[in-house]
Amino acid sequence: MISVEEASARILATFTPVGAETVALAEAAGRISAAPVIARTTQPPADVSAMDGFAVRAEEARDGAALRLIGSAPAGHPFAGSVGAGETVRIFTGSFIPAGADAVLLQEDADAEEGGVRVRETVRPGQHIRRQGQDFAAGEAVIAAGRRLSPRDIGLAAAADHPWLLVHRRPRVAVLATGDEIALPGEPIPPGGIVSSNAHALAAMVAALGGAPSVLPIAADDTEAIGRAADAARGFDLLLTTGGISVGAHDLVQEGLARRGLAVDFWKIAMRPGKPLMFGRLGEMPVLGLPGNPVAAFVCALLFARPALLRLAGLAAAPLPISRAETATALGANDRRFAFLRARLEEDAAGRLVAAAFAIQDSAMQAVLARADALILRPPHAPAVAAGAAVEIVRFDRLGL
Amino acid sequence: MISVEEASARILATFTPVGAETVALAEAAGRISAAPVIARTTQPPADVSAMDGFAVRAEEARDGAALRLIGSAPAGHPFAGSVGAGETVRIFTGSFIPAGADAVLLQEDADAEEGGVRVRETVRPGQHIRRQGQDFAAGEAVIAAGRRLSPRDIGLAAAADHPWLLVHRRPRVAVLATGDEIALPGEPIPPGGIVSSNAHALAAMVAALGGAPSVLPIAADDTEAIGRAADAARGFDLLLTTGGISVGAHDLVQEGLARRGLAVDFWKIAMRPGKPLMFGRLGEMPVLGLPGNPVAAFVCALLFARPALLRLAGLAAAPLPISRAETATALGANDRRFAFLRARLEEDAAGRLVAAAFAIQDSAMQAVLARADALILRPPHAPAVAAGAAVEIVRFDRLGL
Repeated sequence: MISVEEASARILATFTPVGAETVALAEAAGRISAAPVIARTTQPPADVSAMDGFAVRAEEARDGAALRLIGSAPAGHPFAGSVGAGETVRIFTGSFIPAGADAVLLQEDADAEEGGVRVRETVRPGQHIRRQGQDFAAGEAVIAAGRRLSPRDIGLAAAADHPWLLVHRRPRVAVLATGDEIALPGEPIPPGGIVSSNAHALAAMVAALGGAPSVLPIAADDTEAIGRAADAARGFDLLLTTGGISVGAHDLVQEGLARRGLAVDFWKIAMRPGKPLMFGRLGEMPVLGLPGNPVAAFVCALLFARPALLRLAGLAAAPLPISRAETATALGANDRRFAFLRARLEEDAAGRLVAAAFAIQDSAMQAVLARADALILRPPHAPAVAAGAAVEIVRFDRLGL
Repeated sequence: MISVEEASARILATFTPVGAETVALAEAAGRISAAPVIARTTQPPADVSAMDGFAVRAEEARDGAALRLIGSAPAGHPFAGSVGAGETVRIFTGSFIPAGADAVLLQEDADAEEGGVRVRETVRPGQHIRRQGQDFAAGEAVIAAGRRLSPRDIGLAAAADHPWLLVHRRPRVAVLATGDEIALPGEPIPPGGIVSSNAHALAAMVAALGGAPSVLPIAADDTEAIGRAADAARGFDLLLTTGGISVGAHDLVQEGLARRGLAVDFWKIAMRPGKPLMFGRLGEMPVLGLPGNPVAAFVCALLFARPALLRLAGLAAAPLPISRAETATALGANDRRFAFLRARLEEDAAGRLVAAAFAIQDSAMQAVLARADALILRPPHAPAVAAGAAVEIVRFDRLGL
């Protein structure tokens, strides 16, 4: 058996980001930037007013002074002339400061008079002016490459005058469920069978992480059918399989893909749920063979498929985000397998985060998995702890999963 | 001026969830369930094996006993007969337990013999059997209404045999930017103008929260143009405007929409950035008028549009998730306006989360907003605090924004 860490590292080492594509700004939110976004504008484009008021020459705009109003410059309609001695121009937030002026008198500090305004509060030079380029300047990299673009980034890219952005294309991920006993939801269920669920959960996970999933037709439990499924997966960036590994004496998926030239590593990983994991390459395409048990498939996908997918998608490799909580119950000493306990989270009366492991940790319990908020991490040989002890957890809400 | 809390409460009180639509299971991830998902299957559908091994009668399967192999029942191929005295059937994880058997002998605890197996470890009754309905039973509500469907929920709904799910349709949100000075990214910029960015950031925020945004054509700074934009917004679930409120002596958006029958509340909210906010109804459609400054527009959208949208989308009203951090710098005493400081987050050497407010908090600084990880909350009249003091923050990563 190999450790969770070693398996993660070996998988991650083989993935590099997929190529780029051009998408419309409006389609770019949530995508990963494939190049820095270089500003094409300077913001503000000139010295502008930060407030509604009057453009003035500060040396004249002293308490009690009268100024002659020579024009108005709403945003988008700059004043063409110049502010001379004893003059002022009405301006608004975002208006360019007219030539000759060097400060803004707030409208609430000015009294309207026939033909002009009277200053009620002495003005400091530069007051209420946003300087040209204070936010960013043309040529500046305002957004780095390899960043998941937030709505704020979209606003910034717009302000920097980019109608298109270069992002990594979505990694194409084929998802293959195998088994004679499974049927698609809503279709006839074979005798002794159940409804296929892992492929749909995995496809949703792939999409949530930024990939483009394709659910392949279910492959029967025979190596030729699995080989044909591999043919259908040609050209994808990743093939995820579920089930069919380590069944009795057989590894149907491994045998089926071997017929198509799979270079395979098969690992028993010291973890619970999980353990059997297949990793290999079919030509250029990496293949990750997940267990068939729904909870084991999900936890293995979280640990091994998620980082691989994020790396393919163009993000830097990053560890799973770990939080802390108190365990609601005593936890026994762990053996040599890294255990991931499904748990609910709640805050206690003192505002502390408490993780309550479900009593039944069976790896076939999908309803428990769906209701869980987190996994409690129990590393190999973790000692027994009492209720109230600090434990490390992975929160599903933090992963968007 | 009214408080942030009062404005939030008054806005939220008027929103109710939009109607439902039927979507394919594969399209349902991330959507909000509009009805409980009732299981159509029982899982497991019968007593099944939790391991690979042999179905046995526990009373006979004692250490050293020899059992005659009468068949094999791979998953999906249940054994048609019954396990009689001295007999066993080969089974696998997920196989139905054949009639007559009441326990599973692990394959590693059995030695193959001519015509059968020899037991190497005495078997307990019920051992390694997953009971029918242990996960869920037909008729059980496995997923509640009003829940954002995770990939795990999609797996569970699949297992419960639902090819379609009932979800709230995406709230349709019209986004209207106003101003003579703004141009779409990539289009000619008017004299004294800038590129329109708020509408694109707001549309991305709407989409990230589960809404369907439509960016309306930019409306010029005249009331008739704004009135025509309102006509174009007919039938939407929410109209968000940005800019054009409280410009000099004018409220162009308010005046323009008033011509089309807007019932308006105009509020000055005790907050920074922000302050002016328009809220009203145009017929049935709620209208939220946000400021034109990019940072103010974003913070107001976070505080007022986000909860409204989540409520429209079918979620229960929930407060903004608040975290704690240490402030990296001393913060001055706050006045009566709730302040939201843009800040970066990092962990210090001791693993504590530290929030460093940007030195310049100008509400036009989009690059700073995009680089920020969080807002530091400074409630009205918050006292001055030293560096290292605990502060409340809102983390953008926790909001997916």
